[in-house]
Amino acid sequence: MLLNEPTEQNIIEAHERIKSIIHRTPILTSTSLNSFFGGSLFFKCENFQKVGAFKFRGASNALLSLSNNDLKKGVATHSSGNHAAALSLAAKIKNVPSFIVMPRTAPKIKKIAVEGYGAKIFFCEPTLKEREETLAKIIEETGATVVHPYDNYAVIAGQATASREIFEELNDLDYLIAPTGGGGLLSGTALSAKYFSARTKVIGAEPKGADDAFRSIRDGVIHPSLNPKTICDGLLAQLSERTFSIIRNNVEEIITVGEESIITAMRMIWERMKIIVEPSSAVALAVILESGEKFAGKKTGLILSGGNVDLENLPWIKMKP
Amino acid sequence: MLLNEPTEQNIIEAHERIKSIIHRTPILTSTSLNSFFGGSLFFKCENFQKVGAFKFRGASNALLSLSNNDLKKGVATHSSGNHAAALSLAAKIKNVPSFIVMPRTAPKIKKIAVEGYGAKIFFCEPTLKEREETLAKIIEETGATVVHPYDNYAVIAGQATASREIFEELNDLDYLIAPTGGGGLLSGTALSAKYFSARTKVIGAEPKGADDAFRSIRDGVIHPSLNPKTICDGLLAQLSERTFSIIRNNVEEIITVGEESIITAMRMIWERMKIIVEPSSAVALAVILESGEKFAGKKTGLILSGGNVDLENLPWIKMKP
Repeated sequence: MLLNEPTEQNIIEAHERIKSIIHRTPILTSTSLNSFFGGSLFFKCENFQKVGAFKFRGASNALLSLSNNDLKKGVATHSSGNHAAALSLAAKIKNVPSFIVMPRTAPKIKKIAVEGYGAKIFFCEPTLKEREETLAKIIEETGATVVHPYDNYAVIAGQATASREIFEELNDLDYLIAPTGGGGLLSGTALSAKYFSARTKVIGAEPKGADDAFRSIRDGVIHPSLNPKTICDGLLAQLSERTFSIIRNNVEEIITVGEESIITAMRMIWERMKIIVEPSSAVALAVILESGEKFAGKKTGLILSGGNVDLENLPWIKMKP
Repeated sequence: MLLNEPTEQNIIEAHERIKSIIHRTPILTSTSLNSFFGGSLFFKCENFQKVGAFKFRGASNALLSLSNNDLKKGVATHSSGNHAAALSLAAKIKNVPSFIVMPRTAPKIKKIAVEGYGAKIFFCEPTLKEREETLAKIIEETGATVVHPYDNYAVIAGQATASREIFEELNDLDYLIAPTGGGGLLSGTALSAKYFSARTKVIGAEPKGADDAFRSIRDGVIHPSLNPKTICDGLLAQLSERTFSIIRNNVEEIITVGEESIITAMRMIWERMKIIVEPSSAVALAVILESGEKFAGKKTGLILSGGNVDLENLPWIKMKP
């Protein structure tokens, strides 16, 4: 496992390591969105990634970095969804066991996905304390290696490969916007830009209702994510030591956006681009929606982080009482 | 305008004519759908086409085939949706007027789209008689050229370009499945296969609740589409002389499928592929769902004809009373 902040070489090696099992996802553009916003937008479609989210990159890189001896004992994590599915699938591909601690409140579609990948699931109450205690017990019993969803340099190097692919195709982006939860994707994105496209400014997009990363960077200390209130179920986590440090040193700014903008942006992507993205993905376009002038006439990349939505509960459908 | 059944040369010329204004849409595959069905499926994504449907190909080819004198007077049609949007946008691109007769019952999203493209809309009752009378009146007043949604060889040659693009990329398809309404797409698909991939068998997919094309081909006479009952609002029309003749001579068979299969197939495409297709598109995968054995171990192309869905009314969401 990677013990230091990923270097350029680490990211290149991570990409080589996982290339044969990940999808190289397409970068889409939309004439109608470009003309609506008056800039050039490039959408990296990690909603088309395996398990429907970029998380498969980081989980694969972490798992494939293990020694054969550690691999045999399997991997474990606590996660509300996409990371759990990602780690389970990576484990399934390598034919090793995976142990997943999940809050009882996780979206049904994500539980089904994780079960489908053959993981052993342990449900617990949706508090960090409960999750960590349950995980510790599993590790003690199985000897499995914990793969944290983002406070792990191998995971961060894996997430960095999404933007490495962007920079392989586009060498003149002015901005690159990534959703911000625990900061794994944003950290990887910032490091990739530093190494592969120094002219590109990286921006974190965060829901106002879960703006702990924004406040943490502003104040220079990690604020906990207390009672986050947002539709973006993938962005509830708080920064870790590792992601805080990388983001602080390499990200231009974090921009927060309101729930209404997130839902509007999500619907625009569905209607104009005919692709399915989850709310956590739409937060990047919501930034453009709220701060249009900044991006007018510019070339901006946006990472569509995932597409796992409960199709029975779409945010724009008001349930009749 | 094209006066005879499109030749190989006509289709090649149509493609050249419209190339600069259409999207060359991607062909997607899904590992999980392939392993679920035990065959290789190739999805031609016309849901990503301009106006969100293949109809833009045929409408563009018809419009761009007009003389300058006719162009000035504009184009007209009656259509429940995608063809109307397609013709309006093609007219807008060439800066000529368009006149659209629409049933009052057309989906709201399609009305909005047509208005947005600058067409003049005339609403009428949703009967063929009313639609034709309203259209005749408009033609008399404006001198515009009628572009029928499918009973028009230039339109058919335009629709044929979708499968021409498929055969440019894939030269060994066993089957190619196209949705069947009025038969324009199916006719173009069958002609393209005949000219560009003789080994590929073309199959029409039709809802059981609107199976007039199936019965027409079986009985050798055009049956009217009376009271069709299907969620596929793009597949309500009946065959015309032109499409009947082409389909009869060039299509392997028409397979009908139930509503439940169509909704299941639609949802599978949304969930597994993370792309948005309308019910009329899903009818092709519904054929695979109902007749799996036929396609097992084979290479099958499917044309996803469009992606214009009312996102407030998804078929799998039972509205609470």
